[in-house]
Amino acid sequence: MASRVLRAGCCTVLRSAASAPVSVVRARSTTAAAASCSFLPRRTYRQFTASARAMSSSSSLFPGEPEGPVVKTEIPGPKSRAAIAELDEVFDTRSLNMLTDYQQSSGNYIADPDGNILLDVYAQIASIPVGYNNPSLIKAAHSDEMVNGLINRPALGNFPPKDWADVLKSGILKVAPKGLNQVFTAMAGSDANETAYKAAFMWRRQHERGGAHVEFTEEEMESAMHNKSPGASQLSIMSFKTGFHGRLFGSLSTTRSKPIHKLDIPAFDWPQATFPALKYPLDQHVEENRAAEKAALDEVEHIIKNYHVPPCAIIIEPIQSEGGDNHASPEFFRGLREVTRKHNILMIVDEVQTGVGATGKFWAHEHWDLPHPPDMVTFSKKAQTAGYYFGNPELRPNKPYRQFNTWMGDPARALLFRAIIDEIERLDLVNNTAKVGDYLFGKLEGLASKYPGQFENLRGKGMGTFIAFDNPKRDQFLAAAKKFGVNIGGSGQSAVRLRPMLIFQEKHADILIDRMEKIVQSL
Amino acid sequence: MASRVLRAGCCTVLRSAASAPVSVVRARSTTAAAASCSFLPRRTYRQFTASARAMSSSSSLFPGEPEGPVVKTEIPGPKSRAAIAELDEVFDTRSLNMLTDYQQSSGNYIADPDGNILLDVYAQIASIPVGYNNPSLIKAAHSDEMVNGLINRPALGNFPPKDWADVLKSGILKVAPKGLNQVFTAMAGSDANETAYKAAFMWRRQHERGGAHVEFTEEEMESAMHNKSPGASQLSIMSFKTGFHGRLFGSLSTTRSKPIHKLDIPAFDWPQATFPALKYPLDQHVEENRAAEKAALDEVEHIIKNYHVPPCAIIIEPIQSEGGDNHASPEFFRGLREVTRKHNILMIVDEVQTGVGATGKFWAHEHWDLPHPPDMVTFSKKAQTAGYYFGNPELRPNKPYRQFNTWMGDPARALLFRAIIDEIERLDLVNNTAKVGDYLFGKLEGLASKYPGQFENLRGKGMGTFIAFDNPKRDQFLAAAKKFGVNIGGSGQSAVRLRPMLIFQEKHADILIDRMEKIVQSL
Repeated sequence: MASRVLRAGCCTVLRSAASAPVSVVRARSTTAAAASCSFLPRRTYRQFTASARAMSSSSSLFPGEPEGPVVKTEIPGPKSRAAIAELDEVFDTRSLNMLTDYQQSSGNYIADPDGNILLDVYAQIASIPVGYNNPSLIKAAHSDEMVNGLINRPALGNFPPKDWADVLKSGILKVAPKGLNQVFTAMAGSDANETAYKAAFMWRRQHERGGAHVEFTEEEMESAMHNKSPGASQLSIMSFKTGFHGRLFGSLSTTRSKPIHKLDIPAFDWPQATFPALKYPLDQHVEENRAAEKAALDEVEHIIKNYHVPPCAIIIEPIQSEGGDNHASPEFFRGLREVTRKHNILMIVDEVQTGVGATGKFWAHEHWDLPHPPDMVTFSKKAQTAGYYFGNPELRPNKPYRQFNTWMGDPARALLFRAIIDEIERLDLVNNTAKVGDYLFGKLEGLASKYPGQFENLRGKGMGTFIAFDNPKRDQFLAAAKKFGVNIGGSGQSAVRLRPMLIFQEKHADILIDRMEKIVQSL
Repeated sequence: MASRVLRAGCCTVLRSAASAPVSVVRARSTTAAAASCSFLPRRTYRQFTASARAMSSSSSLFPGEPEGPVVKTEIPGPKSRAAIAELDEVFDTRSLNMLTDYQQSSGNYIADPDGNILLDVYAQIASIPVGYNNPSLIKAAHSDEMVNGLINRPALGNFPPKDWADVLKSGILKVAPKGLNQVFTAMAGSDANETAYKAAFMWRRQHERGGAHVEFTEEEMESAMHNKSPGASQLSIMSFKTGFHGRLFGSLSTTRSKPIHKLDIPAFDWPQATFPALKYPLDQHVEENRAAEKAALDEVEHIIKNYHVPPCAIIIEPIQSEGGDNHASPEFFRGLREVTRKHNILMIVDEVQTGVGATGKFWAHEHWDLPHPPDMVTFSKKAQTAGYYFGNPELRPNKPYRQFNTWMGDPARALLFRAIIDEIERLDLVNNTAKVGDYLFGKLEGLASKYPGQFENLRGKGMGTFIAFDNPKRDQFLAAAKKFGVNIGGSGQSAVRLRPMLIFQEKHADILIDRMEKIVQSL
């Protein structure tokens, strides 16, 4: 139904089918046509960058996307309900939010099988960077390189492709955080964090042994096979209350978001520190917040010195993204870096949700102006692949096969991330997000004044579009949003979290603000 | 260099470049041409199946692949060494086995940048099912569906694609083991196992609580947030000595292969039972082997009844694949199923390496003729995606979001697995592997007689091409293999493990046998 993505030859075009009942107006610019429907060599392609940057403040960053939401049925509508019932026979659908028609989704807009088209500011839990059916990604997906990466999947640690250095350098490593020039590739946020933890344990024990040259003892090798110390180390990873770092056994032991994530699963006896609970608006609670952050840092230091399973690393999100969009100040993070260095503890920054542009910088921790870079930074979601960056060669374990697995990532996904990075650069999307975020935040402040209590604890100022607020009827707010044509997610107990894509513009912010006003009026 | 994979329009053809120095003879049959270079609808495509089956015993299952290995330089050669040095600046290359030119690899043959072409019976650690640059997979990779799966990656638990039920039913679930009709999709073998463990813990605790309707207590919810019992359960997963189940924190706690996999990483206090150490040839050690298996089963039962952290599940590989290709009899596995049922313990069969045809059945546990199916079966590697199958609705946790993560697999990889399944069916590759495995095993028995001690403990009879033997100079054997044009892997302390693809035929077995004879003569 409606318009369909069809391929004409090797080019993809958006075509309105004859039967299309939806009045979605689509437009195409020269830039978009060049990006979507050609196999121009990369340099020619680049020539569009300058003009695109000049255009981006006013014109569309995603020509051809719908001009606004279209709500035709309740959601889920009849077609979705039938398909969900069929799916439930073989797949747990209780967490299903919206059955999606990805072929019909475009740019900032997500579609469902009943012809509903919503402005999507949840974006697959913050995982879509440059829009549904982005023409540049379609082009990358059709490349010989991508087909090769998909069908000839390597065991990357044993048999890397001849051009793997180039793929890394022109992609993943091109955006490496300052001071970190190495990468270990993984599959998803959880294993990105867990492999970083493993690196931390191996680093710390090596340090304790006296260096990379010191061999393991017989006792270590024997006891490791029985899951006992000293071979299995009695060390820990410290995390923060209400933090989220994944759901596998090691990462879940550091996740402290909600009981439902943790119940019944065995966990390591690892420590947690209090994340400072800031009060908003920040400028009205300067002293209280400073005291809260000071207390949190003191607690961190106390745990490092006293916890019975000593931490070798801390892991922290720049903004606690699942736990309710909890922020702390750059001073707090600089203090944390100081404490970790003082006690020879590694600092792992979990940028799985905050990374890749959404905060108006490529990495959220760039907001902190750290005097020393973190030891490791983990990434996933908008990167469409995962892993951890590190800068210190000591974080390469002393022997091969200690940090290893069959796939060690996915070259197809690494190639897609490279195309995403190119698109972000071509359209200057990090700066776009910073600017649009400021615009959106200003409009939200207006709504917060107009509707007291409905947009409580508005937060994320100066952090791009990574914005959240609390609403007393949050779950109703999120459910109602779909009726008004917007797909929004929540986090923590009462937060509405905004996670637009990087192609979100002022015109989308205007629609979002308009619809959110209607939502709160309806509650 | 040499021949290159080029696309003409939307079709992929293998072309010999004018400068090609390698004398690789390529041939094409009507079947292959139809498979590689057309967008015929699926039904037309199917018509080739019958004739392909008739042909498969004599003609090539991969028309166009090289006729034999070509060794032009030492490995790594000069081009490889230069590229490896560059790669090592940003990526740990100490576990690198061979830098690979995937564009030049074809069917059973793996190529490197120096023009060497080896018969590959390691196949990316048993992960390539139907050959490098398989034309049917190239076709699938070019489809609109695949492009959509790649560029519009869903959070599958929240926003599944409208046709996800169909993708599962026509792919992953079409090959579900008997008695198991549900799937939880994951990313790699480790998280496939860990999500299965999580399902086991939740199932057991629900059972202990009295059913799905019994709510969690305040104490459970509070203690879970502190990684303490009763919220974090004090239960375990039992595994077997020398077993391998992955390298993340939960899976690594069940992995018992080698110290290097486990050293310094904290582990759960979970029990291990002895895997029976069979003596070969099996028909000369019937009584001893039966006694070893009986003792192992007794130990399992003893641990279930007495271990201080009670197991809620056991996990076992049909053949211990990393730990040295250790086999046990169908009677042993039937006995294990009986013990687990008697004590209300779940049985998880880890088919990450044994699954998808390599043992001459689609799932290795089909060799056992179990009276009751396993509770869960995990898969990855040749499936190019991962997850666990289960049959019992009770293994769906009582509430949503308990077994959940952002991606929950990868639709692009699920679509690729569907194309792999189609190719396996089209060419009858499981039966091919059973037949070729018997042929290869017979030839290896001949070598074992001719070279006493060189092909010791030959094992895997009747298990397709999943064959191994011990060699006293194993590591030299593997290194020498490349000089003779063969890429082979090892497992355990002294095993040479054969892991050919499913398109491995008698002609390849003949080459392999010839080269292995030369290898042992050279040692």
